[in-house]
Amino acid sequence: MDVTKIMLTEKEMPTSWYNILPDLPEPLPPVLHPGTGKPVTPDDLKRLFPMALIMQEFSPERNIEIPEQIQAIYRMWRPTNLHRAYGLEKALDTPARIYYKYEGTSPAGSHKPNTAVAQAYYNKAEGVKRLATETGAGQWGSALAMGCMLFGLELKVYMVKTSFQSKPYRRIMMETWGAKCVPSPSTDTKAGRDVLAKDPDSPGSLGIAISEAVEDAATHDNTHYSLGSVLNHVLLHQTIVGLEAMKQMEKADAYPDIIVGCIGGGSNFGGLVMPFMRDKIKGKKKNLRIIAVEPQACPSLTKGPYSYDFGDVAGMTPLLKMHTLGHTFVPPPVHAGGLRYHGMAPIISHFYKLGLIEARAELQVPVFEAGVRFARSEGILPAPESAHAIKVGIDEALACRQSGHSKTILIGLSGHGHFDLSAYDEYLSGKLKDYEYPEEKVKEALTSLPAVPGA
Amino acid sequence: MDVTKIMLTEKEMPTSWYNILPDLPEPLPPVLHPGTGKPVTPDDLKRLFPMALIMQEFSPERNIEIPEQIQAIYRMWRPTNLHRAYGLEKALDTPARIYYKYEGTSPAGSHKPNTAVAQAYYNKAEGVKRLATETGAGQWGSALAMGCMLFGLELKVYMVKTSFQSKPYRRIMMETWGAKCVPSPSTDTKAGRDVLAKDPDSPGSLGIAISEAVEDAATHDNTHYSLGSVLNHVLLHQTIVGLEAMKQMEKADAYPDIIVGCIGGGSNFGGLVMPFMRDKIKGKKKNLRIIAVEPQACPSLTKGPYSYDFGDVAGMTPLLKMHTLGHTFVPPPVHAGGLRYHGMAPIISHFYKLGLIEARAELQVPVFEAGVRFARSEGILPAPESAHAIKVGIDEALACRQSGHSKTILIGLSGHGHFDLSAYDEYLSGKLKDYEYPEEKVKEALTSLPAVPGA
Repeated sequence: MDVTKIMLTEKEMPTSWYNILPDLPEPLPPVLHPGTGKPVTPDDLKRLFPMALIMQEFSPERNIEIPEQIQAIYRMWRPTNLHRAYGLEKALDTPARIYYKYEGTSPAGSHKPNTAVAQAYYNKAEGVKRLATETGAGQWGSALAMGCMLFGLELKVYMVKTSFQSKPYRRIMMETWGAKCVPSPSTDTKAGRDVLAKDPDSPGSLGIAISEAVEDAATHDNTHYSLGSVLNHVLLHQTIVGLEAMKQMEKADAYPDIIVGCIGGGSNFGGLVMPFMRDKIKGKKKNLRIIAVEPQACPSLTKGPYSYDFGDVAGMTPLLKMHTLGHTFVPPPVHAGGLRYHGMAPIISHFYKLGLIEARAELQVPVFEAGVRFARSEGILPAPESAHAIKVGIDEALACRQSGHSKTILIGLSGHGHFDLSAYDEYLSGKLKDYEYPEEKVKEALTSLPAVPGA
Repeated sequence: MDVTKIMLTEKEMPTSWYNILPDLPEPLPPVLHPGTGKPVTPDDLKRLFPMALIMQEFSPERNIEIPEQIQAIYRMWRPTNLHRAYGLEKALDTPARIYYKYEGTSPAGSHKPNTAVAQAYYNKAEGVKRLATETGAGQWGSALAMGCMLFGLELKVYMVKTSFQSKPYRRIMMETWGAKCVPSPSTDTKAGRDVLAKDPDSPGSLGIAISEAVEDAATHDNTHYSLGSVLNHVLLHQTIVGLEAMKQMEKADAYPDIIVGCIGGGSNFGGLVMPFMRDKIKGKKKNLRIIAVEPQACPSLTKGPYSYDFGDVAGMTPLLKMHTLGHTFVPPPVHAGGLRYHGMAPIISHFYKLGLIEARAELQVPVFEAGVRFARSEGILPAPESAHAIKVGIDEALACRQSGHSKTILIGLSGHGHFDLSAYDEYLSGKLKDYEYPEEKVKEALTSLPAVPGA
């Protein structure tokens, strides 16, 4: 019998996250204070984050133990399965061996709960009563709603107004888990009211929502801010995915030649690839190829300069050294809402600079074509974000057919597409349109790149 | 470490389905031909079903081997996990030990693919090229779309028009897997055109959709009809759920005192409970309590007479001995679409008559309350159908708190509620209304019970 899913028992689940910082061949450029141009200190961040997470952000420890309470919650849906894609291999008639790590079986349907649960835990442990966050399409907001519910924290989610109106299911999911969710811009914050005063019909943006959530946290007692990607500690929590996948590949007596993941802020990709990347850095797996896939409509890694920029549109965050399309850039409305972010996690940007990863930008129509191909051969209906990784995984498998090489390809399948079916409908009915690289808009946004004080 | 999920490896997956027919203390009353009143023969059914399924319908064999091709597809998502509900136990402060078997991780999000894949396989094996079926809320249609896609069969789904319009996601899911889905009544069949001639604005009903699908199968070459519940062979395929659960309980060194499942046609409930019921019949577990939960709005088992009736509104099927509210009964529009069927599987009805199971009827508001309680303690957002089982599972756990008994309760969690979030929204905003037992409508429908010829 060929094994279709490589499973781990709960006892085989990793008990530490993997922190790549001490293994980097060159250190990560520091995060800078926008006022002074000096590296931020833990003290600068403590109004927004619990000290445990701030310490993880800069930690020199390679292995960071996962507290037992977090492990207990992980066990509700973890370890997740690693699948061998026999159906897809057959459909492609490829000699490649394709595996995928599937995170869609979590209660929120994606990898996001891996960090949501951890962030809720550490905030609770430091006596915080309430969190504020933003969400675009709603994947992050619903994951954090679940995390806060499990630890008895209140949660307020500022959801980009267009998504709030067009994707009510994610909003209801958050409410079912007990969170409060409002459309952003809202009248609940000064930032929101300022926007509404200028434009009462503002559709909102992730940047506005971040400003609202940060202001909310800064102006409410016992309230912290929480972010679902980009930062080191978020990617750290996601390494549970890659650590499990490594053990599972080992059980299958295999090791990937190629790993593919999609990138928005970078947390799903980083979490999957970093444990394998260590082997590449150490010279044990020099030929390992790691490919990050982003949308053509928002190609930060492939088209954005590597520069210091703000994490949010309003310019309230510290300065991050990253590939960026400019913090005022508003991406076209592609359906992969989780990939519509102007910047890229500093650590992923650093990997790219060091030549540890490759990057590709894809158009959404061929991405949906790949998603449907996957659904029709593997049964699982992927999120549009995950379908970006599938697209490139299929391209690589077809290259194997061409060359006759039997490579081992590992695809990160970050979530299911149950809430994205209207996008599939558009694709299937031929109405889905493509957005090329928005060169003019990016050029304009890049003029907003901030100067680093004292540089 | 307490184990949260009891997992099975692929090698531990059962390789046979369990057929309870030879173990019944009294034989099942025969299915009758509506014209002659005589028991139907395999020949009577072969225009609609492949002979392999007809043979399973009447099989005297206790164990029916699962063909390797079906096992291979099962392995895409099976074995499913058995969870220990630590979160719910804590929330209820009960000494009861609660377990649940979760089928929501299948590609279609419910238990339905277990039989959809098998039915597609046996039809394919006998040279059938195309299937026709009906679907209400779309769970069955989407599962069969997946099954047909995997075996290269065409599929036409007649979907009740109100659901087709109000639940587009399920329709798109079917199309993504390559099925054709039309609103019923349609102009594609005589049955549909007849209805539309009388009432161009007909909202459709499951009965009309069955008539259309049966007519479609009878009038197209190489086309068979497929049903998602009620029949013996359908419940047989679902025993994979109960067989896995038994092995998992054994691994947990436990055995249920109480098993709870929801019933519409009866396939999810039957599949879970029949392997355990064998122990009860054989006297090994005399005190095992098995509880079937149905909606107050459609209480076939608790309020319907045990009588011969048609399986469809139009009266095109053979006569089935079952608890029925009358084949012309149209249930109120409760959100648990999968439980809105006028009859009950003959074999479940037979269990009830023999005293092997108990039955409860629940109102939907307390059912949703239980669903939210579950989501907030276990993370998983249950389908409204499954929430019926949760409601009674919670009641039994609270009775344990009262009595101080530490009983072991096993709940069948048939699917996730990702496509039912508008119903959760209604509940959370206080707009959900209840439908009591529609006594007058049932009384009226019962006048339509057919006479058995020659009886």
